[in-house]
Amino acid sequence: MSENTWKNDIQSLIANTHIAFLSTMGEHTPETSMCPYAVYKGDIVLHLSGLAKHSKNIQSNQNVGLMICTPETATNSPLALARIGFTGKIEPVPQAKQSVYQQAYLKHIPDAEPLFSFPDFTLYRIKVNAVHWIGGFGKARKVPTATWKSLC
Amino acid sequence: MSENTWKNDIQSLIANTHIAFLSTMGEHTPETSMCPYAVYKGDIVLHLSGLAKHSKNIQSNQNVGLMICTPETATNSPLALARIGFTGKIEPVPQAKQSVYQQAYLKHIPDAEPLFSFPDFTLYRIKVNAVHWIGGFGKARKVPTATWKSLC
Repeated sequence: MSENTWKNDIQSLIANTHIAFLSTMGEHTPETSMCPYAVYKGDIVLHLSGLAKHSKNIQSNQNVGLMICTPETATNSPLALARIGFTGKIEPVPQAKQSVYQQAYLKHIPDAEPLFSFPDFTLYRIKVNAVHWIGGFGKARKVPTATWKSLC
Repeated sequence: MSENTWKNDIQSLIANTHIAFLSTMGEHTPETSMCPYAVYKGDIVLHLSGLAKHSKNIQSNQNVGLMICTPETATNSPLALARIGFTGKIEPVPQAKQSVYQQAYLKHIPDAEPLFSFPDFTLYRIKVNAVHWIGGFGKARKVPTATWKSLC
């Protein structure tokens, strides 16, 4: 795995996938949910409904995990799918930054445009504090957050 | 969404997917990881490496979340992918049940066969205590655990 290969593989994964799996802390139990995502200057951008359980969970605990994974297909072994994991703190995008984050989100998830007129949806960002890349079976490495930011 | 349609959709999702997204509680932060999975009598069956962070996490907190999602494709909107979420307690499969769980796991994930000779891998089961199904945008319902068990 050369220096450039894994960096290119991360960029390709982000360019070609549109959903992520978010871990939030419920009352007693961590919970996984699926969220369309985008990336803006190293932040993960999510647009969440206030009706969904994850939105309630992050009111009491802003620490979250997130994974983006190569979609399974008939030809890929489920053991070897390249994926990237993050931990970080989630927060609503500040009012002054709404426009640039919304633009970045809709560039990656154009289908979400009508949801921006729904009053219960809020744009969030995850400020990433740790990143790990698993390029396949046994190919894992931590990615410094500065390196992650330089890739996106 | 008729009574039978969503049940058939759950069975079809389980039959056609092989990876799940597990939420475990780290020291401060929930974390998402990808795990190949199978289902046996309503339990989710996972085969985890002791070297992986999720295995360390479940030593201190057995409460986990898990999601199984329709893979994204160029033709499916990322907003509407059918998915099923679980919470439950994870535990090693008891010695007396190893053989039936292993058989169920390898039937669904045949590529994992060589990993059963690796000493650091352990077969786990999640005893499911809550199930929710999201059949698409706005199509969510809780599934009683007895109903879930009757489907698999």
